[in-house]
Amino acid sequence: MKKLKLKDFKILDEQDPLFKIRDEFILPSKLIYFDGNSLGPLPKQTINMLDSMIQKEWGNGLISSWNKENWINMPRDLGNKIAPLIGAKKGEVVVVDSTSINLFKVLSSALLLKKNRKIIVSEAENFPSDLYILEGVKKIFGKSYKIQLIKEGDYKIENHINFSTAVVVLSHINYKTGRINDIKKITRVAHEKGALVIWDLSHSVGVMPIHLHNCCVDFAVGSTYKHLNCGPGSPSFLFVNESLIEKVSQPLTGWMGHIQPFEFSSKYQSANDIGKYICGTPSIIAYKAIQSALKVFDKVSLKIVREKSIKLSEMFIKLMDQECIEFDFTLISPLKNQDRGSQVSFTHSKGFSIMQTLISRGIIGDFREPNILRFGLSPLYMRFENIWKAVLCLRKIMQTKEWESKKFNKKKVL
Amino acid sequence: MKKLKLKDFKILDEQDPLFKIRDEFILPSKLIYFDGNSLGPLPKQTINMLDSMIQKEWGNGLISSWNKENWINMPRDLGNKIAPLIGAKKGEVVVVDSTSINLFKVLSSALLLKKNRKIIVSEAENFPSDLYILEGVKKIFGKSYKIQLIKEGDYKIENHINFSTAVVVLSHINYKTGRINDIKKITRVAHEKGALVIWDLSHSVGVMPIHLHNCCVDFAVGSTYKHLNCGPGSPSFLFVNESLIEKVSQPLTGWMGHIQPFEFSSKYQSANDIGKYICGTPSIIAYKAIQSALKVFDKVSLKIVREKSIKLSEMFIKLMDQECIEFDFTLISPLKNQDRGSQVSFTHSKGFSIMQTLISRGIIGDFREPNILRFGLSPLYMRFENIWKAVLCLRKIMQTKEWESKKFNKKKVL
Repeated sequence: MKKLKLKDFKILDEQDPLFKIRDEFILPSKLIYFDGNSLGPLPKQTINMLDSMIQKEWGNGLISSWNKENWINMPRDLGNKIAPLIGAKKGEVVVVDSTSINLFKVLSSALLLKKNRKIIVSEAENFPSDLYILEGVKKIFGKSYKIQLIKEGDYKIENHINFSTAVVVLSHINYKTGRINDIKKITRVAHEKGALVIWDLSHSVGVMPIHLHNCCVDFAVGSTYKHLNCGPGSPSFLFVNESLIEKVSQPLTGWMGHIQPFEFSSKYQSANDIGKYICGTPSIIAYKAIQSALKVFDKVSLKIVREKSIKLSEMFIKLMDQECIEFDFTLISPLKNQDRGSQVSFTHSKGFSIMQTLISRGIIGDFREPNILRFGLSPLYMRFENIWKAVLCLRKIMQTKEWESKKFNKKKVL
Repeated sequence: MKKLKLKDFKILDEQDPLFKIRDEFILPSKLIYFDGNSLGPLPKQTINMLDSMIQKEWGNGLISSWNKENWINMPRDLGNKIAPLIGAKKGEVVVVDSTSINLFKVLSSALLLKKNRKIIVSEAENFPSDLYILEGVKKIFGKSYKIQLIKEGDYKIENHINFSTAVVVLSHINYKTGRINDIKKITRVAHEKGALVIWDLSHSVGVMPIHLHNCCVDFAVGSTYKHLNCGPGSPSFLFVNESLIEKVSQPLTGWMGHIQPFEFSSKYQSANDIGKYICGTPSIIAYKAIQSALKVFDKVSLKIVREKSIKLSEMFIKLMDQECIEFDFTLISPLKNQDRGSQVSFTHSKGFSIMQTLISRGIIGDFREPNILRFGLSPLYMRFENIWKAVLCLRKIMQTKEWESKKFNKKKVL
């Protein structure tokens, strides 16, 4: 194989159809940011959008803005903006609360629909918060429920789904390794066994096309603060297949999910649309940052985003092979392009200290227990040249063993 | 009784120790704002606080701000800022999620603590969202649970609490009438019967001293977007008595409530402090507006706020008696000062149209079904002269029957 040179990366940047999209974001000039899968950067237009919301809509409009500025419809309106990014129809998505709370809602819905089935299937390596929510739901649904966690390597997932399975709860992309689960295939198998599916799209939304509706997915949830760049802790989205919306119910029945919230009736009657998943009053300031960040996606094709994403991770892996082969990094992301999300992850026994040293040099990836170095690749603003610089910097760090002399406080690192 | 004149109101303004606090807020000059019990106005310093958070902390700091700017501790830190406003100790309050979701959590906690008791007591006239959450909890806890709603007039509440009562869920101030429930007395009676209490402080926090800890309250929740002025839909607070914190659990077990969230352990182990009520990642932008708004309360004594609040509502009622007695308004707020929160409410058969006419003249109160005109009185920025103007305007509207000729769309009004 021909040796990779800086020039190769520069050419890829020149050919990049998304090259100009980077200008939409504030990115400190000295940083190379591989953490968009944890917190996306600030879109420039969000600054004015929020300032205007705060001063004009809240400051001057006060209570009237709930109607005049259409705050009241934001959970549904923002849902309809997310819909094309995940292959959903209008009316199948709402934006509200956190991903964990939304998972609680749809998992409750699924169990209430499948009362005679008591088994919840997931993966042992699923995102911890999702697993914790399974425990929380089981806590109140009762002891008759069982959580069955498939261990890494113990695949295929499909073999663990049977006629006792109530619901299968999986992440589309594994947060540690970047491995993609096949939504279409697993959903089909679950349905053949009469089970429902819930997909967590937190690590895939915004970096690849997703086809929830065409894959007949029942429920999905996902984060907006990663590749969608909607701000730290921004509210999450929740998808319900339109074929289920009339049938389902959920226990977080707050007034904004009522069919007529302003009648202030003492009896709950849920909205007959996706709005039944809204609970209390949502933060409008947080919503405005979502509204603004999603506008960037009007300008891009997710097909092209995915093509760039694959090329970025492929080049990262190749360059690591070329420059860092002697330093005992183990690639834990899938080698096959079609199985890999928009990140590359390696294990290393000194992973924590190495990542902290990289960060101190302005190369911002992250560390995940027990020994994982994780590099997120957000195609909207990542340059191919960034990858060259990062891997060369890593090589230098490994050669000088710079990380050996430093002390880092693990507890203080997100 | 001596006839009230404009001069009397002007004198009260001159004597008002909170007179200057109004300068802390953006208030459009042509409005008289009686809706701070629904959405508080924008504190001036929130504009810069949010701009700085967005550009400096998110834009430049990116992921590092979770630690460097202490985002990670905001749920607990903001809780400690709210604590003195509600008579709580450090470590008893957390700010996260919505009031309805927080009520779901603490109600679940209470029922898990009192497994042998199946009755939840509340009021039929409690805030609807609170009642809806009782229904939601019952939905998954099961059919053995019963919600017992005390009807208005069917008092005393204490008579309805017995040794089968698991938990009593009440609002401190009724959202329609402004009637105050006696936290101390009802909590004591509930405890005598072995029941737990949950107080919703949404309409009282920020307008009067509250003594949760001294009253031995078990749980409380409350809104921050009303009299605390933290922005539309800002996250809510949740209180747990320190004597219960170690014992309690709740089902919304997201990763931020884990004792070591960054270990990414697959097993949930809750934090051993109030942080166990945090679920998913909270919106930091929304939090910053809370941090800013709470600073205003550093400058005021709640005792003085309450004194002004009483005087405001007393003057409103007296002036209504003097100027509008012939127009068939019925006061539904308690006449006794000590029983009345920071609002005055009247019923009128044409209440909806009358309120819309007032609003069209820049006097912003609100309407609540079926026939209630509600005037919130926020002592931090309300002027006594505002009351004079509002009541005189109302008199004029009633004399001219201006509201008869107008058409208003009920569905569009918050």
